[in-house]
Amino acid sequence: MASKQSDLVQRNRAQSKRAQEVIARCQQLALFSEDELTTRRTFLSPPMQQCHRQLTRWMEPLGVQVRLDAVGNVRGFYPGTYSPRLIVGSHLDTIPDAGAYDGVLGVLLALTLLEALEGRKLPFGIEIVGFSEEEGVRFQTPFIGSRALVGRLDNELLNREDKNGITLCQAIQQFGLDPNQIPCAALSNDTLGYIEFHIEQGPILEELGYALGIVEAIVGQSRLEFTFTGRANHGGTTPMHLRHDAMAAAAQWITEVERAAIAVPGAVGTVGTLEAKPGVSNVIAGEVHLTLDVRHRSDEIRSQIVAQLIRKAEEISEHRRLRVRHSVLLSQQAVPMNGFLIDEIQLAIEKTGCVPHRMLSGAGHDAMILAEKVPAAMVFLRTPGGVSHHPAESVTEGDVEKAIECGLHLLDQLAASPVFLKRMVRA
Amino acid sequence: MASKQSDLVQRNRAQSKRAQEVIARCQQLALFSEDELTTRRTFLSPPMQQCHRQLTRWMEPLGVQVRLDAVGNVRGFYPGTYSPRLIVGSHLDTIPDAGAYDGVLGVLLALTLLEALEGRKLPFGIEIVGFSEEEGVRFQTPFIGSRALVGRLDNELLNREDKNGITLCQAIQQFGLDPNQIPCAALSNDTLGYIEFHIEQGPILEELGYALGIVEAIVGQSRLEFTFTGRANHGGTTPMHLRHDAMAAAAQWITEVERAAIAVPGAVGTVGTLEAKPGVSNVIAGEVHLTLDVRHRSDEIRSQIVAQLIRKAEEISEHRRLRVRHSVLLSQQAVPMNGFLIDEIQLAIEKTGCVPHRMLSGAGHDAMILAEKVPAAMVFLRTPGGVSHHPAESVTEGDVEKAIECGLHLLDQLAASPVFLKRMVRA
Repeated sequence: MASKQSDLVQRNRAQSKRAQEVIARCQQLALFSEDELTTRRTFLSPPMQQCHRQLTRWMEPLGVQVRLDAVGNVRGFYPGTYSPRLIVGSHLDTIPDAGAYDGVLGVLLALTLLEALEGRKLPFGIEIVGFSEEEGVRFQTPFIGSRALVGRLDNELLNREDKNGITLCQAIQQFGLDPNQIPCAALSNDTLGYIEFHIEQGPILEELGYALGIVEAIVGQSRLEFTFTGRANHGGTTPMHLRHDAMAAAAQWITEVERAAIAVPGAVGTVGTLEAKPGVSNVIAGEVHLTLDVRHRSDEIRSQIVAQLIRKAEEISEHRRLRVRHSVLLSQQAVPMNGFLIDEIQLAIEKTGCVPHRMLSGAGHDAMILAEKVPAAMVFLRTPGGVSHHPAESVTEGDVEKAIECGLHLLDQLAASPVFLKRMVRA
Repeated sequence: MASKQSDLVQRNRAQSKRAQEVIARCQQLALFSEDELTTRRTFLSPPMQQCHRQLTRWMEPLGVQVRLDAVGNVRGFYPGTYSPRLIVGSHLDTIPDAGAYDGVLGVLLALTLLEALEGRKLPFGIEIVGFSEEEGVRFQTPFIGSRALVGRLDNELLNREDKNGITLCQAIQQFGLDPNQIPCAALSNDTLGYIEFHIEQGPILEELGYALGIVEAIVGQSRLEFTFTGRANHGGTTPMHLRHDAMAAAAQWITEVERAAIAVPGAVGTVGTLEAKPGVSNVIAGEVHLTLDVRHRSDEIRSQIVAQLIRKAEEISEHRRLRVRHSVLLSQQAVPMNGFLIDEIQLAIEKTGCVPHRMLSGAGHDAMILAEKVPAAMVFLRTPGGVSHHPAESVTEGDVEKAIECGLHLLDQLAASPVFLKRMVRA
């Protein structure tokens, strides 16, 4: 008994240590930044080179073959006893004034899984991918890294310019890479699937008291602009019944946005920007320009909500004798994750003693892009306070340890799965 | 009969001509501008000198003694058979991108009234005042011109700086005037009253089909700032029931502002500015900053509306678990116009054949300041489309002619009024 207890204590210490190390490594990479005091590591920026060097230093001792592909994704291959591979990864770029975990945590968890294998070979290889671009900061276009893997980097995108007038193609060359090699960044034919660990970036797991979540689908998203045009006039001399107040119309409509989203389970609706003109305290707003973001797992329901809100905007404007016009900026369909991988992740989470909560991702992720070509799935880690995209972003050591355990169970399950083996034979 | 008809035609032509001239003079002064293509003539700016010179050229031939007082108000005195004086005037400064009539029209109507007297002396003198500052553009403080007349230019105001760091005191000196002479700008003790013609700057007279209005009171005004503070969060990953959305709270409250103002006859409520932070389409607003402008002729009712809206903001914020704070920027009491002068103006308007509509002024005017010291009253001219503070601001020739007729009847009435004579004896 004494010996067993001692074993348990030692194992707990070792587990605590590896979770601590994941967190410390995330914080270490956060220092590689374009800004002095905060973290900003955009696509193909100089600190991304430092990040690559550090990752290489961590991966190579494990027998991992590390390379950069032509868009700057870090690709570390740990061979299996057979050639097919499972990709585990996430992204290495950040927004300005970022936290340390969004993206980076998924790459470092993949590294820790390889370390925990202690040289043991699985029937399949594992490719760690640290995507070079997910946030869309530099070229106002997200998922450049994962797009390269699914063959969706077209000439239009390669010729897009950043705010300094540098094209994506030039940026690749300036980073010392060859745009002609982009086709070689594509997924190899023997890719079995893609697993991504990522912070939830929302409050749901915390609210429920769960460490980990399984993403069933990445919800679809509509983004629109609306302009309400009334008549600017003197706020003191224009009686209420003779106003065509764009602010009052917009306010009434925003309450309808909230009502519509609350009425549909799982829907979210956000008006995050609003600009009123002329924007003077004693002048009735003649024009209000705002944006609408609507998301739902069902594309049909999302379209219905958007259509309903467009009608509402028109009704309100007609009633108030205003004009309203809208334009659709984005209409992104929902992307379901792979059912087989979802079930396996559920089993793996159960083995860690955690509740395997199935949920949706309200944000886009690289898994959404990879799912176009290979079975893809995601594990969410609880995000304290739901805070992300902020220096206060955090994870707990306990949750990171559960994620590592989940990952190791998952690898063992897949290594022993007839379904997975069949896929390997096919590959 | 033929002769009478011919007289009438000639009189109509002459009347049409003097109204045309008033409009043409307004447009001529609009060319004296700090900006090349639009009118901007702020307090003590170089084009104000040109404006003064032109007014002097028009006034002196009528036997008017013209001077500039120490804050740059044009003071033109047309003596009567007795020394007491009636002031007729308005302001000469403009906002940026202004129309040609706001303020200036009142000064040029006063000039036209003197011209129409054709040298005839009244028992009282007439002082035309062209106030140098009413709009509050240069020093973010309105009514500097009229404040000097009532002795309300204190040292705090004299030391206030414009956006170039020039104090009001320095600006006076740079214009060639002596700040030590400001006390001499005060109303002379024999001032009988103040009459101001001004465009309505609102749609009411047009809506009713009336040329002229009599201002019974200048309504009181409350101006407040509100800041709703919720929690910024990801618009995709934060479910509706876990949001603390400052935009949704502000929108709900703005609908309450409109409802509260509509519920009280004569009240107006305006939210003209709104700033949302961080102001990103897929991020829930963590903070919304906005302004509230409330006006009503009754100070008590205005205070009640403001108190009710502060309570509403607190209720909404409490319900949504946000914080709200407010600060009062301005609380200006309502100013009634002089009852005797109102009745005389009503009679004068009736004599022109127009309907003498009694109304409120929703905007502040110099008459509000002068009313602190002397009986003051205002006549409003219909404003086509209710458009003011805009290059499209206009007046019709017919309405200007009615204003001239009203002014002449009023002068004759006052010259023959026992009440007015009694005041003169007192003075």
